[in-house]
Amino acid sequence: MAKYSIDLDRAFSALADPTRRAILSRLCEGPKSVSELSEPFELALPSLLKHVRALEQSGLISSEKIGRVRTCKIEPQALHATEAWLRQHMATWEKRLDRMAAHIERMKRKV
Amino acid sequence: MAKYSIDLDRAFSALADPTRRAILSRLCEGPKSVSELSEPFELALPSLLKHVRALEQSGLISSEKIGRVRTCKIEPQALHATEAWLRQHMATWEKRLDRMAAHIERMKRKV
Repeated sequence: MAKYSIDLDRAFSALADPTRRAILSRLCEGPKSVSELSEPFELALPSLLKHVRALEQSGLISSEKIGRVRTCKIEPQALHATEAWLRQHMATWEKRLDRMAAHIERMKRKV
Repeated sequence: MAKYSIDLDRAFSALADPTRRAILSRLCEGPKSVSELSEPFELALPSLLKHVRALEQSGLISSEKIGRVRTCKIEPQALHATEAWLRQHMATWEKRLDRMAAHIERMKRKV
């Protein structure tokens, strides 16, 4: 698992919430201020900030405060690490299916 | 989000644990009994079974008991749904980068 320097526990845990996934969806389109992020959600600002902090701690996003405006952006390495973990495991599973199909094909030829 | 009928909250939550990810890694190589799964882990059987149950509830695996042996296997739809969510979001993010690069290129040509 050393390959993944990103903390996958925290990243997957942060992804396990629909509001946090919706925040990520919007940030994939570009950086946004906290007040822009809050617009589509019926959430009090402290609740939204709690989600933003959880996403920051997971490494999936970062934020910077300039003056009175806090702007959030995607940190692609963490998103990529979670996607890579899943893709690699799907590939292992699919390779096994391919090997099974090839084995069945060989068996059929022998009949 | 309606596209994902799989419960992404539960699936990502189940993935947020290193033991559960290690169980999934082993099951991607093929179905295994609970006692086979327990081998590499220094875990009491009740603790392992707790993880197995969490993975089952997330839809990432299923298990079947025949006689005294419970065998676990991957449920690829849930693994695929989590990977698809992340892949789609990485793609959105990368498209934005491409658009930005193209924009910068056009600006450079104008200088």
